[in-house]
Amino acid sequence: MAERSPLAPDRFPDMPDIAGVRLAASACGIRYSGRTDLMLAVLDLGTTIAGVFTNSSVQSAPVLWCRKALRSGKARVIVANSGNSNAFTGKKGVEVVRRTVQAAAKAISCKINEVFLASTGVIGNPPPAEKIAGALPQLSGQIGSGNWEAAAQAITTTDTFAKGATRTARIGSVPVTINGFAKGSGMIAPDMETMLAFLFTDAAIPARVLQALLKNANTRTFNSITVDGDPSTSDTVLLAATGKAKHKKVSRAGDPKLRDFAVKLEDLMRDLAQQIVRDGEGAQKFVTINVSGAVSESSARKIGLAIGNSPLVKTAIAGEDANWGRIVPAVGKSGEKANRDRLGIKIGGVEVAKNGAVVPGYDEAPVAAHMKTRNIVIDVYVGVGKGRATIWTCDLTHGYIAINADYRS
Amino acid sequence: MAERSPLAPDRFPDMPDIAGVRLAASACGIRYSGRTDLMLAVLDLGTTIAGVFTNSSVQSAPVLWCRKALRSGKARVIVANSGNSNAFTGKKGVEVVRRTVQAAAKAISCKINEVFLASTGVIGNPPPAEKIAGALPQLSGQIGSGNWEAAAQAITTTDTFAKGATRTARIGSVPVTINGFAKGSGMIAPDMETMLAFLFTDAAIPARVLQALLKNANTRTFNSITVDGDPSTSDTVLLAATGKAKHKKVSRAGDPKLRDFAVKLEDLMRDLAQQIVRDGEGAQKFVTINVSGAVSESSARKIGLAIGNSPLVKTAIAGEDANWGRIVPAVGKSGEKANRDRLGIKIGGVEVAKNGAVVPGYDEAPVAAHMKTRNIVIDVYVGVGKGRATIWTCDLTHGYIAINADYRS
Repeated sequence: MAERSPLAPDRFPDMPDIAGVRLAASACGIRYSGRTDLMLAVLDLGTTIAGVFTNSSVQSAPVLWCRKALRSGKARVIVANSGNSNAFTGKKGVEVVRRTVQAAAKAISCKINEVFLASTGVIGNPPPAEKIAGALPQLSGQIGSGNWEAAAQAITTTDTFAKGATRTARIGSVPVTINGFAKGSGMIAPDMETMLAFLFTDAAIPARVLQALLKNANTRTFNSITVDGDPSTSDTVLLAATGKAKHKKVSRAGDPKLRDFAVKLEDLMRDLAQQIVRDGEGAQKFVTINVSGAVSESSARKIGLAIGNSPLVKTAIAGEDANWGRIVPAVGKSGEKANRDRLGIKIGGVEVAKNGAVVPGYDEAPVAAHMKTRNIVIDVYVGVGKGRATIWTCDLTHGYIAINADYRS
Repeated sequence: MAERSPLAPDRFPDMPDIAGVRLAASACGIRYSGRTDLMLAVLDLGTTIAGVFTNSSVQSAPVLWCRKALRSGKARVIVANSGNSNAFTGKKGVEVVRRTVQAAAKAISCKINEVFLASTGVIGNPPPAEKIAGALPQLSGQIGSGNWEAAAQAITTTDTFAKGATRTARIGSVPVTINGFAKGSGMIAPDMETMLAFLFTDAAIPARVLQALLKNANTRTFNSITVDGDPSTSDTVLLAATGKAKHKKVSRAGDPKLRDFAVKLEDLMRDLAQQIVRDGEGAQKFVTINVSGAVSESSARKIGLAIGNSPLVKTAIAGEDANWGRIVPAVGKSGEKANRDRLGIKIGGVEVAKNGAVVPGYDEAPVAAHMKTRNIVIDVYVGVGKGRATIWTCDLTHGYIAINADYRS
């Protein structure tokens, strides 16, 4: 693993057990030596599941499998490997999925549509089915409730740290736990890509309701981050609910009893999403972009992502350059409605531009000082409505070029 | 001017005169010292004009002016300055446009809606109206028919070479000339941006027909290039036809007599567009991406631009890495229809992938050799239709980061 990102949290969090979830990791030699590359999560009977996936028109074989399996709403096992992704692998890739699913179903004694898969790593060569299928029987004997960091570690590719988060929520008066781990650093290194997140809770939530909660939180979290604007063919977020907690029954996403759960789920997902940005390739600065005054939340998010994906904005931040003039064309480029003559920009809380022009007597000194910090905050007001959204990104540095161009994969 | 791009043509082309077009350039000290920054084109009575502009929702004051003036279809003068753009300048910017237009109309004795403007350079501060307006009377006395390179030079910002092109076409049996010059290098340096192109012909073509010809050619030329995916707030292409050539009357874009003109116009615009890519910030390689098998030409272009805007594809090319696996997610990201299982990729003419997987016995050696050349060619087949398009881009190198992040503007 490369040198830990300067934006990384101090350490992996202490993760409590979740009743009904057991994890294991092993090194089955898919591509790396001397490290784990296979993660197994075994879920107790009665676990419901929800998932959101890449919108790419070129989706990996495991993503296509998961979309199909998700129809049952039930899950007993999740298998994820690093090293090779299973994208652009044709019939071979489909065969790898089939063999892996069968081996997992046999090892755990469940139906094949209760098995969920994810693969991340080099595109174009499927992971070796025989190694994964061969490792599963033994691995299923090693599962335990405390292996969160090991599981998070096994799914990393060129991440510089393992990413985990935990929250406690109340459903009615009953506390439930939500744990999650994720991998991804944008598309951090030669051939490597994919954002994966696996979330687990002991709450008892029907699959349909779980899906609504996940989808809603996903928009404001994993879909609100960008490193380089290149989504992967394998992006996968799965949320499994074991139903072990003894709270009152919930049957719809709008149930007031689920409010706190929804808030904490979104909070945990935001934490993981931000950790991915903090591990963005070459990242030296963590950037928060708040957009307000848009026609809708969705429009505000698109404007925020247009700014966050602008190489000119990102290189200006890398250069600690208070170059607000680069934000304007990025807003214009989004294709979203904005009123040029009402546009306003703050950097580090300091008003830079207002009503479509630089503020009178603009003093750059406090803005320049803010640009030298690790955490950059940009507020943009577009003057056409009440929609607001926040997105997170990182700067674009020589490190990005060095990782992606200088070294042959 | 920085060191000339390694992808630049050997020299500025020899440009013939165009009857009815006279040009001049001067140094009026907008921002630079020791170089020209103001270009004046004076057009004989009876000149028709067409224009295409940025689609940004945050358009510069000169762009908004040109859109309005274009309604008359007539032009007598074009004034363009480098140094300061006139974008995000609020009421001050509108006032600069008003004063410049009035000064130009007075100097040339024409109506204000026959005056066209463009400004390029730093965003947020309008160019000084008094300097431009003050320079115009004298400059209008210096116009000549042979000042093409001087005019092209005056509108550059951080371009590393002046960009010009000329073509001869026949309308019926009568030869007509098309000359053009352009500036832009993506958004090449701190605060700098904007693509400008000024095209002139002695053909006699009604404004409405000229507009149709320009718009059509623009899609396959200037709208088919990308350096960093950040369009500007000031992008402007103007085409003026003086009507001095003695060909038969043409009254519609579909007139067979205009076929050769349309072909040569597109050819000239492609030449200028490619010169802009060849001056892309930090560019070391010129990249041609041919997309076929899409549902339409427009869909093929979107797929091509998604590939051409992918930082991962562009850094792989910079690294001379035959990393075809990065092309796949870029196709998927475009949002356009593609058949994963029919996808094919060639690099340098060598088949790399076919029917959604790497070709059997793939030999990377010839592809690796191609990646070491200056001109990279990528063919992508997406297997859903007959739409095809070509786009041009450059690689993403340390030079880009150095230009945009390392030096404070």
